[in-house]
Amino acid sequence: MPTSILSASRRLRRTPFSDGVEATGVKGYTIYNHMLLPTVFRSVEEDYHHLKTAVQVWDVSCERQVEIRGPDAGRLVQMLTPRDLRSMMPGQCYYVPMVDETGGMLNDPVAVKIAEDRFWISIADSDLLYWIKGIVWGMRLDVLVDEPDVSPLAVQGPKAEDLMAAVFGDGIRSIRFFRFGWFEFQGTPLLIARSGYSRQGGFEIYVEGTPVGMPLWNALMEAGSTMDVRAGCPNLIERIEGGLLSYGNDMTRNNTPHECGLGKFCNTMTAIGCVGRDALLRVATEGPIRQIRSLSIAGARVPPCVEAWGVTDTRGKRIGQITSAAWSPDFDTNVAIGMIRMTHWDADTSVLVQTPDGLREAVVREAFFH
Amino acid sequence: MPTSILSASRRLRRTPFSDGVEATGVKGYTIYNHMLLPTVFRSVEEDYHHLKTAVQVWDVSCERQVEIRGPDAGRLVQMLTPRDLRSMMPGQCYYVPMVDETGGMLNDPVAVKIAEDRFWISIADSDLLYWIKGIVWGMRLDVLVDEPDVSPLAVQGPKAEDLMAAVFGDGIRSIRFFRFGWFEFQGTPLLIARSGYSRQGGFEIYVEGTPVGMPLWNALMEAGSTMDVRAGCPNLIERIEGGLLSYGNDMTRNNTPHECGLGKFCNTMTAIGCVGRDALLRVATEGPIRQIRSLSIAGARVPPCVEAWGVTDTRGKRIGQITSAAWSPDFDTNVAIGMIRMTHWDADTSVLVQTPDGLREAVVREAFFH
Repeated sequence: MPTSILSASRRLRRTPFSDGVEATGVKGYTIYNHMLLPTVFRSVEEDYHHLKTAVQVWDVSCERQVEIRGPDAGRLVQMLTPRDLRSMMPGQCYYVPMVDETGGMLNDPVAVKIAEDRFWISIADSDLLYWIKGIVWGMRLDVLVDEPDVSPLAVQGPKAEDLMAAVFGDGIRSIRFFRFGWFEFQGTPLLIARSGYSRQGGFEIYVEGTPVGMPLWNALMEAGSTMDVRAGCPNLIERIEGGLLSYGNDMTRNNTPHECGLGKFCNTMTAIGCVGRDALLRVATEGPIRQIRSLSIAGARVPPCVEAWGVTDTRGKRIGQITSAAWSPDFDTNVAIGMIRMTHWDADTSVLVQTPDGLREAVVREAFFH
Repeated sequence: MPTSILSASRRLRRTPFSDGVEATGVKGYTIYNHMLLPTVFRSVEEDYHHLKTAVQVWDVSCERQVEIRGPDAGRLVQMLTPRDLRSMMPGQCYYVPMVDETGGMLNDPVAVKIAEDRFWISIADSDLLYWIKGIVWGMRLDVLVDEPDVSPLAVQGPKAEDLMAAVFGDGIRSIRFFRFGWFEFQGTPLLIARSGYSRQGGFEIYVEGTPVGMPLWNALMEAGSTMDVRAGCPNLIERIEGGLLSYGNDMTRNNTPHECGLGKFCNTMTAIGCVGRDALLRVATEGPIRQIRSLSIAGARVPPCVEAWGVTDTRGKRIGQITSAAWSPDFDTNVAIGMIRMTHWDADTSVLVQTPDGLREAVVREAFFH
């Protein structure tokens, strides 16, 4: 696909931070949960180097929330995922694969447990609200399910903690990974978690309502002026290096969590009530026959991966597909994520990738990031 | 929002016709059901004049289908909509507002009844599949629900029937509005309906599978060479003139069908089993307090409507909002769609619109298109 223009409309929702994003010179967008998500500011590579050395503020409002509240909330959330949630306490965030009755992935959100009877499900790109509302109506559960006016703002990068401390105070430093606390900004309490879609560390601020959006954006930019803070966004190269999956790119409804390498987040035996439990029990025991892998693709920079690229063995037999790929300056090779059959998924296995530019040699890798 | 670049990825799905769309010089896209939808070829105005005088082929693959099949199919579809479906026969298409338990719009698809126990729901921009799957699981209904590999291709414009007849034979001329038949193309049976998202007349071809996509596209282009056929797409100006609503733009989950002017598609008393029936009974009887209206906005060309614009009375009191707007060459004014309170929704009422360029005078209209 050549460079394309995105036609704006109300249906592609703006965010509380869009004015800031535009003022900072955003160069590209994608659409995620019917909302604008920036993809590039200076260049994907320049953004990448900066993310790894400094600190960025990301408009990830598109990580919409599904609020689940009421007496059946806990039971309902357990129905949605094969991860056993009995040990989850208020104040914790859990990465929870969500599956349908066949065990197919519907979303891979982070569940935020605000209280025993109240959760925010911070979703990837699909209308998970609809699935949950359907179940609730079909089973007449006693819960409220809605999309609240909450827009996450991420602060990511090695200097993220210093920047956050400058705005919210040193208390922020004691938040542990995938935990959250409440902090005030100009009188507004904000839920802040140590989390985010990069391997560089950082936080996600769950911003309720629009009015506090730009003041918070501006406060972070001002407080970070000595830390080389910039507007940023999830970075294609960094997230592939880090093995961070993207729902819709690297996994779809056709895949089980086990295929996606998310078996460690599944406790299928004990996740009693999970919609997909029966369907997943066998794959949970025996393992999948194909699975997500990191790969390096030889040769010069690959073109953008806009469709799955076939992966074959050296004799041409199809054994998988590549779904994300980018040139990595730090690893000096093309890094990629794909789904590979078990016959070829061991590290260091040589395979071939059918890129739009022609056949390339590739090697299955352990994760690039450790 | 300035002109923005759309970053391609597998998550923003290509279609069976994307190669043809690109070869024809598409200039802009939007994203709809996680898929590419062209928005401009030459210019929105040039495309508009052409659509009204000739014939266009539209890649509307993003009108994804939800297939519902099995013994409970009919009961399930009736649960989804306040339109009474008892009279619907195989071979018919019905425009069916779909609502949640509060009567809020979840989608406004066209239901295609293939057989007594088999429907395709041709959806607007939301993951209706998830809502339906949730209900089916919650109620343990005996149906299959899935997204089949079906990509609609629309042929729209005054010469649409001639072009279709050239490719599929004169039998196509006898298809009545919102009815469908089966026609062969190179040995593949295709469901073809007289329908489409314009007021210029035409057809939608439900293309199953990818291999037949480009041969069909090319056959239409070739057969239409003497009819000035062009690649096209739903046209912003034409659809606003025609009062064709866009889910996500002109209506959301916050609106009832009655507010959207879709009361004529609701038979709330007799749509027994509809999820939203109880919530809608009162509004069905009393009518809504705000409703979709066409408006003309005075002055020069308005900027793109990327956020709802406030509508006030002449003393500044808010009485509604504009959600779609464009300059109409044929009506020589800005045409718009908005939601207006009953105090001001009568035709010829003068109101004010808060555009990004400043306050404009506007007038509530009967539909532009008759």
